[in-house]
Amino acid sequence: MAEKIYRVNMTTLTVSAEDVPREWAALGGRGLTSTIVAKEVKPDCHPLGKYNKLVFAPGMLTGTACANSGRLSAGGKSPLTGTIKESNAGGSAAQCLARLGVKAIIIEGLPQKDSFYSLHVDKNGITIAEETELIGKGNYAVIKAVRKRRGDKVGVLSIGPAGEMKMALANISVRDPEGNMRSHGRGGMGALMGSKKIKYISIDDAGAPGVAIADPEKFKEASRVFAKCLLDHPVTGQGLKTYGTNILVNILHEAGGLPTQNFRTGRFDGHDKISGETMHDTIVERGGKPSHGCHAGCIIQCSQVYNNKKGAYLTSGFEYETIWGFGAGCCIDDLDAIAQADHMMDDIGIDTIESAVTVGVAMEAGIIAFGDGKGMLGLLKEIGKGSHLGRLLGAGAAALGKAYGLTRVPVVKGQGIPAYDPRSVKGMGITYATSTMGADHTAGYSTATNILKVGGFVDPLKKEGQVELSRNLQIATALIDSTGLCLFVAFAVLDKPEAFNAIVDMVNAKYGSSITGDDGIALGKSVLKLERAFNTEAGFTKTHDRLPEFFEELCPPHNVVWDFTNKEIDSFWDF
Amino acid sequence: MAEKIYRVNMTTLTVSAEDVPREWAALGGRGLTSTIVAKEVKPDCHPLGKYNKLVFAPGMLTGTACANSGRLSAGGKSPLTGTIKESNAGGSAAQCLARLGVKAIIIEGLPQKDSFYSLHVDKNGITIAEETELIGKGNYAVIKAVRKRRGDKVGVLSIGPAGEMKMALANISVRDPEGNMRSHGRGGMGALMGSKKIKYISIDDAGAPGVAIADPEKFKEASRVFAKCLLDHPVTGQGLKTYGTNILVNILHEAGGLPTQNFRTGRFDGHDKISGETMHDTIVERGGKPSHGCHAGCIIQCSQVYNNKKGAYLTSGFEYETIWGFGAGCCIDDLDAIAQADHMMDDIGIDTIESAVTVGVAMEAGIIAFGDGKGMLGLLKEIGKGSHLGRLLGAGAAALGKAYGLTRVPVVKGQGIPAYDPRSVKGMGITYATSTMGADHTAGYSTATNILKVGGFVDPLKKEGQVELSRNLQIATALIDSTGLCLFVAFAVLDKPEAFNAIVDMVNAKYGSSITGDDGIALGKSVLKLERAFNTEAGFTKTHDRLPEFFEELCPPHNVVWDFTNKEIDSFWDF
Repeated sequence: MAEKIYRVNMTTLTVSAEDVPREWAALGGRGLTSTIVAKEVKPDCHPLGKYNKLVFAPGMLTGTACANSGRLSAGGKSPLTGTIKESNAGGSAAQCLARLGVKAIIIEGLPQKDSFYSLHVDKNGITIAEETELIGKGNYAVIKAVRKRRGDKVGVLSIGPAGEMKMALANISVRDPEGNMRSHGRGGMGALMGSKKIKYISIDDAGAPGVAIADPEKFKEASRVFAKCLLDHPVTGQGLKTYGTNILVNILHEAGGLPTQNFRTGRFDGHDKISGETMHDTIVERGGKPSHGCHAGCIIQCSQVYNNKKGAYLTSGFEYETIWGFGAGCCIDDLDAIAQADHMMDDIGIDTIESAVTVGVAMEAGIIAFGDGKGMLGLLKEIGKGSHLGRLLGAGAAALGKAYGLTRVPVVKGQGIPAYDPRSVKGMGITYATSTMGADHTAGYSTATNILKVGGFVDPLKKEGQVELSRNLQIATALIDSTGLCLFVAFAVLDKPEAFNAIVDMVNAKYGSSITGDDGIALGKSVLKLERAFNTEAGFTKTHDRLPEFFEELCPPHNVVWDFTNKEIDSFWDF
Repeated sequence: MAEKIYRVNMTTLTVSAEDVPREWAALGGRGLTSTIVAKEVKPDCHPLGKYNKLVFAPGMLTGTACANSGRLSAGGKSPLTGTIKESNAGGSAAQCLARLGVKAIIIEGLPQKDSFYSLHVDKNGITIAEETELIGKGNYAVIKAVRKRRGDKVGVLSIGPAGEMKMALANISVRDPEGNMRSHGRGGMGALMGSKKIKYISIDDAGAPGVAIADPEKFKEASRVFAKCLLDHPVTGQGLKTYGTNILVNILHEAGGLPTQNFRTGRFDGHDKISGETMHDTIVERGGKPSHGCHAGCIIQCSQVYNNKKGAYLTSGFEYETIWGFGAGCCIDDLDAIAQADHMMDDIGIDTIESAVTVGVAMEAGIIAFGDGKGMLGLLKEIGKGSHLGRLLGAGAAALGKAYGLTRVPVVKGQGIPAYDPRSVKGMGITYATSTMGADHTAGYSTATNILKVGGFVDPLKKEGQVELSRNLQIATALIDSTGLCLFVAFAVLDKPEAFNAIVDMVNAKYGSSITGDDGIALGKSVLKLERAFNTEAGFTKTHDRLPEFFEELCPPHNVVWDFTNKEIDSFWDF
């Protein structure tokens, strides 16, 4: 069965299946969502209005046996930033969609009635049903109910109360194989799904045709090489499995790049209490799972299941950036409080990074004190309730900062800056400034080369080489985000040329094509450029490629400042 | 004594007096504030940070005997919109400053200490003092206290609690001759003054040298002609004096351009209860003053003193746009409730237009119901207290709309759209879209020609001629705002060429210059262009020159939509 583009019209409540246009045939993931958004969405439209579209697309390799290829891209105009947005997530939805031959789902229009709906995708296509029972419910309840309705293997994409309320920090949750959650976290895509009045999408791949592979033998061989590269690399084969991403707390603390107390310093006294090492021991002690994959076929296994003191499940997919944000960022040295926050945020359906940065700004505003873990949980509760305070917070860090007249508001293009201080991990600063989607560490993870010495070394405290580093990483990331591969494969790819070649070989084996590595790089470049072009039409200029003024302040312990000239930053786009 | 530029450095708490640079010598008001801001303020700076400046400048003719010449311009980068901003107001401050030889006051830097200050301007210069007693107090209390401290004739510029809290809808109040208030209303200039930590500025012109006139006889003659033009014109000589600006409620209702229920329709059933005619009768009945000038030398006398049911002072400077906003905009047909709101807003120190549009959006969000006058007063109280709800509202309509995920949010460049529906008074739509300062009716008051048939007639329901009309008016307005003349003189100027010539003659008589009318128009154009250039560097593009998407909806009773193409709008700047 040939792949199809499904178009869901929420105004007429109808679905159509279209053949895949030739120019989209070789695209997937971010490359496809950004292409569709750039072509079909009015760049100056209101993100929550009828002209915006929500596009889901599995990656080019998703649904195959390739390791770590189960990522799903969600695209649209961001309700948080107003830029183009692609947010990708693990979980089981992407693989179900790919096996069903769903190249992309394009959700458009707004319902005429004030009701919520659900979508169901299976081998017969997509159906729309009105939803009442689950409205107002958290994601855990939604996933549980949908499993009950549709069976235990069903993939689920859902929004919590925050998405229903169209809050700019709302995310889209994705069921993982065990029934917990991963997220399309950043950019407020949950608000976009909420504006379309879709509470959840269930995906049943029973009887699915599966993914066609033009040259199965060649694919198998390349896939084997690729998996071996991942397993052999110290970061993807060992580090991430043992400590998860949270291995970074101590590393960034040591490097002086762990943003502490709303970006006042680069080291946090309480780092030991929230570190990956402490977390690992705590998980083991309480009978949780220190390593765990977010989708079938993941061999990196950076996720984990974190139990509470009584040994019962508390949260999973508990990431460094979340722990940094509430830990160092908000000066809360209590891992259990942060785990509880992670559970609440998954349930309410809000991005943990934007939420953490927002709580840091709330502390800056004096709403609660730095270090107040109980107060922090109280704020998250308000977001879930949609109280006045919750609405203040739910619009994100930039909006909260404006409401309180603050200047120490760590955002770029309206999106909160994550867990790496741009003054002391300067390559990240270039990524935050220039990313087409606002401050986003995953857009070009210069930390790899600045701090982890993967793919060489560029001194994090010096300007030299950072623009080029971020540019190369952003181009490569745009490509990886298009393949459906987890971004963490980049650690192996940066150090092992054969890993990159294996990806190219798998793509060729799947599509019967003969692209080269250079073609892949060209694709990465073209994705960045079409995203940039959308943003230009949406009203963004180089003036938005800037970090907040307060990064002129010294960041201890290295006492460095953000010292790039505008010209240096703007040279990022010279390609 | 030669005019001076005073520079107040709030970081070092020092003041310097500088000679006026030659290129600024012939400038005043908006022409001067915008020139200084464009030259000295980093366009991409944070509006509340150390790089922004607050500039006050009396107009070119201010302090002379010219009728209606007592306007003061306040300039800076707007905390509400992020654009360049000039807001001008009546009151007695401008004339005091002009007579003291103060060409402009440039306030720069941020205090190092967390204290508030006051400035005092007199014949010896400017002094800075720490202020504690009046912090947290409303503007009425501030003005009363400053009169007590400095004497009954002193000019006062002050901020209320909203400005202290750096709320984006905070204004700067100006004492009028009777001790009540006028406002630098729009653009959040009160937040900028609050960021500089200046609670008030007092101005004592005792012993002032006065304004030098190069050719007193010529000035006197031109001034006489000008005054006669004002008195002879039906709008400036009669209409405004009798009913104030609120004469417009019934006129706009009739025209179908009175935005009602957050811009759902163009007519308001309760128009009679809030009209200028009703207001006039109520004022007379209660022993108020139906006409009143906001500064010495005003012969238009559009202001008034509105008493409560017991005959005691309630408010003054009670304008059409305020009454429209809370009346038709929020469906509150209770003039006393709106007058009470006006009093509260003056005291808290917030822009009445932005506040009204914000309350309309709060009603849209369901925080209170349309028509709920008591609820509306409650919301204003929350703003004054700075509660969570108050902070939500205090950031303005755009921010509130984002927090509630709304699309019906009537703003351009983040500033609330005032009292003339752009669909049925299309010339105003062009002004809202293209103004360098966000939606602002005073930037190019096309209502004059669309509705009042002053300066000819351009059909308000048709696109033809609107771009040219708005362009001509915006150019003329930039000139008038530079002279220190009240914008209402434009009614006479549009109909009587001799009024315009008299203005040119007065400028020449004052400065000993020989400029022509064309030079004046050229000045207006250059002011607009330098403001636009600042905005471009601040990150604004033609994409920001757009009205919200929801104006595609039909506006009853004429069932018209906003139908300008982007190209048509952008042609505004072809000069």
